[in-house]
Amino acid sequence: MSKYPRSLERLMGELQYLPSVGPKTAARLAFHLLEAPLERVQALAQALKEVKERLTSCRRCGNLAEGELCPICQDPDREPQTLCLVANTRELMAMENSGQYRGLYHVLGGLISPLDGIGPEELNLASLLERLKREPIQEIIVATNPTVAGEATALYLKELLQGKGVRLTRLASGLPIGANLEYTDPLTLSRALDNRRPW
Amino acid sequence: MSKYPRSLERLMGELQYLPSVGPKTAARLAFHLLEAPLERVQALAQALKEVKERLTSCRRCGNLAEGELCPICQDPDREPQTLCLVANTRELMAMENSGQYRGLYHVLGGLISPLDGIGPEELNLASLLERLKREPIQEIIVATNPTVAGEATALYLKELLQGKGVRLTRLASGLPIGANLEYTDPLTLSRALDNRRPW
Repeated sequence: MSKYPRSLERLMGELQYLPSVGPKTAARLAFHLLEAPLERVQALAQALKEVKERLTSCRRCGNLAEGELCPICQDPDREPQTLCLVANTRELMAMENSGQYRGLYHVLGGLISPLDGIGPEELNLASLLERLKREPIQEIIVATNPTVAGEATALYLKELLQGKGVRLTRLASGLPIGANLEYTDPLTLSRALDNRRPW
Repeated sequence: MSKYPRSLERLMGELQYLPSVGPKTAARLAFHLLEAPLERVQALAQALKEVKERLTSCRRCGNLAEGELCPICQDPDREPQTLCLVANTRELMAMENSGQYRGLYHVLGGLISPLDGIGPEELNLASLLERLKREPIQEIIVATNPTVAGEATALYLKELLQGKGVRLTRLASGLPIGANLEYTDPLTLSRALDNRRPW
């Protein structure tokens, strides 16, 4: 016979599907929810349902959207001359959170990774080439991670997009703000040296 | 204009009502849920609804229950001669998790704390005295925390229950298993000394 009532056990079990939630955290969350106001818990349950029902991909850029187009593609203040290529919507949101970027995006839907069996045909490249024909794009910023898969994808994109009449750029690599030289890995340091700027 | 689609914003907002979930964790959880299978998210939403709809208090001991009686009060293998007094259901579950206790419980519903305006009349003591008359209770273990409020409550219970023909006991205080004398607070150490056992 279980120690917890059945519905509480079930809630703890479902909470454990969340990232970095083990049995102890699940129990803590479940007891918190037990004591939380009914409206709060109902609102959470409702928000969970709605996010799955309503969210789709933006027809144009692949970002999360509730209708045909995402909030960014709908925003008339974004500059349509600049396109930023990101691997997924989380990295798109990270770029947005920097507050610096005013152009549009294109979500690749992944990175080229032969070891995981992901080739260029898995990425949203056909729609990217389509956009290049129709939209007034002048610069494409390749904003994939400075990792093996990110660099491989960036190289592939360079070959694909060269000669299409757009300026190609890549996010800078170097020391993160607040870094300490002593604790910086050698690869980052050598990249920061390579990319040194006139001072 | 918001960066996130509305339903995603709402989910992130609701997730932030969970304990120790700030904006960053909420975003991480929300993106995880976006990518999780639909059935998983629906099951979580359903579990949230059900836990609020189904869970009540055990009519006998105050533990969480789905019907009239909690799983422990329904279990014929528990020893009805021993009653453990706990402040709340989370501490009851902690006792259960020790795997040692085979008796029944009574949930006080809090601890006496004059500073917070909680007096004895806020605790489930009438039902406790009722149980003492009807049930074959021989020992009452006072399992409140060794804190100011827990000790105050234990003292109050001692006066209340003395002379009722039951053996009163209190959980031992002392060094936690694996503790290091060097890092143990002086109060715990002096308690461990007071309560030293023949060896």
